[in-house]
Amino acid sequence: MMRVYAKAILPAGFLANGVSCGIKRKAKLDLALFYSEIPAKASCKFTTNKIIAAPLVLCKKYLKANKQFQAIIVNSGNANCFTGRDGLADAEESSRTLARASGIKKEAVLVSSTGVIGKRLPLGKIKKSIPELVAGFSVAGIDKAKKAIMTTDTFVKEISVKFNVGGKVVTICGVAKGAGMIAPNMATMLSFILTDANITQKALNRALADCVEKSFNCITVDGCMSTNDSVIMLSNGAAGNSLIDTGKNFIAFVNALRIVCLELAKMIIRDAEGASKFIQIKIKKAKSFQEAKKCALAIANSNLFKAAMYGENPNFGRIAASVGASGVDVKERDLKFKVSSLKKKNIFVDVSLGRGKSCATVYTSDLTPEYIKINAEYN
Amino acid sequence: MMRVYAKAILPAGFLANGVSCGIKRKAKLDLALFYSEIPAKASCKFTTNKIIAAPLVLCKKYLKANKQFQAIIVNSGNANCFTGRDGLADAEESSRTLARASGIKKEAVLVSSTGVIGKRLPLGKIKKSIPELVAGFSVAGIDKAKKAIMTTDTFVKEISVKFNVGGKVVTICGVAKGAGMIAPNMATMLSFILTDANITQKALNRALADCVEKSFNCITVDGCMSTNDSVIMLSNGAAGNSLIDTGKNFIAFVNALRIVCLELAKMIIRDAEGASKFIQIKIKKAKSFQEAKKCALAIANSNLFKAAMYGENPNFGRIAASVGASGVDVKERDLKFKVSSLKKKNIFVDVSLGRGKSCATVYTSDLTPEYIKINAEYN
Repeated sequence: MMRVYAKAILPAGFLANGVSCGIKRKAKLDLALFYSEIPAKASCKFTTNKIIAAPLVLCKKYLKANKQFQAIIVNSGNANCFTGRDGLADAEESSRTLARASGIKKEAVLVSSTGVIGKRLPLGKIKKSIPELVAGFSVAGIDKAKKAIMTTDTFVKEISVKFNVGGKVVTICGVAKGAGMIAPNMATMLSFILTDANITQKALNRALADCVEKSFNCITVDGCMSTNDSVIMLSNGAAGNSLIDTGKNFIAFVNALRIVCLELAKMIIRDAEGASKFIQIKIKKAKSFQEAKKCALAIANSNLFKAAMYGENPNFGRIAASVGASGVDVKERDLKFKVSSLKKKNIFVDVSLGRGKSCATVYTSDLTPEYIKINAEYN
Repeated sequence: MMRVYAKAILPAGFLANGVSCGIKRKAKLDLALFYSEIPAKASCKFTTNKIIAAPLVLCKKYLKANKQFQAIIVNSGNANCFTGRDGLADAEESSRTLARASGIKKEAVLVSSTGVIGKRLPLGKIKKSIPELVAGFSVAGIDKAKKAIMTTDTFVKEISVKFNVGGKVVTICGVAKGAGMIAPNMATMLSFILTDANITQKALNRALADCVEKSFNCITVDGCMSTNDSVIMLSNGAAGNSLIDTGKNFIAFVNALRIVCLELAKMIIRDAEGASKFIQIKIKKAKSFQEAKKCALAIANSNLFKAAMYGENPNFGRIAASVGASGVDVKERDLKFKVSSLKKKNIFVDVSLGRGKSCATVYTSDLTPEYIKINAEYN
């Protein structure tokens, strides 16, 4: 039995809050806190970009040194990336200030940033707002936190799933941000996933890796990989279920987490900058999942294909050319295409490679003049 | 001594023509012939797309079977790609008809097509026009041929270089087409290069491979690799120079050919679909040419970078993020950037990786709403 809610519902033992610290203009929410009342396990997936932002460097350091975490502090409006040693010091100081304010150690505080690259983090504003952030955290505070992580997003991305493990109800709650520069390997998106499941570290890592690979790593807006993208997950065990490790309880956990990740990933594409179409590309009869994904991404990242979708122009040639350019050794005579009506907002592209039994599904958007307008102006 | 002419001047022993056979609307020129009065050596470079068009399949077959060539027949408006066995038969029949009309064997006729993918070649129209095409070929006919190869091009791409080998004047003449879907590995562009140089097959192949790698393979409009792109070169020896193989005569030949290839490649970028900027990206201090090129292309193919250039928005973060996403193991602290004024049409981006001594230069255009408009409508 699994129940899905189109809303962020904090699992047991979690609190959250969001405030406006002044990084964004017009007093918009721009500083979020996700907090577990008891120490939690963490599992994270970060961008594979070689240039990574300071908060990611810091998180990786804390994840190596530490096994127990209680907080995630997130600011929007500034990515704290390409900021050198100063940026790293700023990220660390954020974690230290939050730790002091909430009575935990700084290595238990994960840090995340999103926004403009190359500008120093306004640390003063963040430090000044931390007391307010901590003083106000609550169960209802998730409604502010989920808004405070947004940048160019036009709607909140949130979902919760509840399921049973033994007699206990376990909750997984996920929120995400990301509206442009989203490519596989989690480029430019942030997602925070909280669960009260009692689960081993190994099982948590395995579940997250598997779910991210088939969700956040299967979406692309423009093929651009960001320096900040992160999926940060905390599990605090407050549901009191018997420890999940392998077997049917693990499968139930993965199934629930997969829904959380996939639905959030799809919401990111639905909110892609300037997009007018939501496109699902399914590659069938490939030799492996990786091969199918490679082909699907080659189509999804083709500007010519994306512009044709915007123009509602059924140009099969561009699909064929993209598959051929993917590097997969396809034969023209084996390729089969099926494309749904281009007049609709949701478009389904099915391609059969005639090479094997594997398949993969990738989600993308069209390329529109509006996308260029937004990205020509964004600083 | 080398003289460069911004015009196609046929080398000794070559004739050409262009006619309207009715593939394009409004009686536009759409069928071209490049012809050598004496048998010539050929050297070709084709797209690395796994789906290649029928004329490329045929050329590869003829190049294997044959050492002497006399003609290149080119149609624009239809790429004869993704047309299966029928398409291959159509290409072969074109070569056969031209061969009969000009009294040579069909394997001496190279075939090239550009235009829409996935539609059967209107062979009847081509066959009907071949007698007119052959009857009218002349030295002046190059002015029609260079126009007949164009598709969405807004200007003719042509250049000639003359230089001395011993006491003899050698000419290399190049024409090209291509205005969108141009990526490295010669995606969606055609170039025909004719020379009267007397040169060994080995030297010809080496020279062309080297020059193409640093010219046509260093330009990108949208990263999309086409199914038809080809550089086809003929050398007929009519200049009567002493045979070029290695040494200083080979170097002189490569220097001249490099100018032809590089200038044509740059013209293709200057004519990129809907572009408003011509952007040169130079990567310095890389460990190898290939590494430098990989970084340069990662920037050049980033939609975010291209949209920022359109908006004249100096977003260094996007350059850094692209370099980091390229897969090259760069360190943030070693990266140095220099970007010229974004207000001008020509933009120069210099990036130093601080890793070694190699460099590479890539040419690209910006991404504009106009690009999308053109590609949303093009069938």
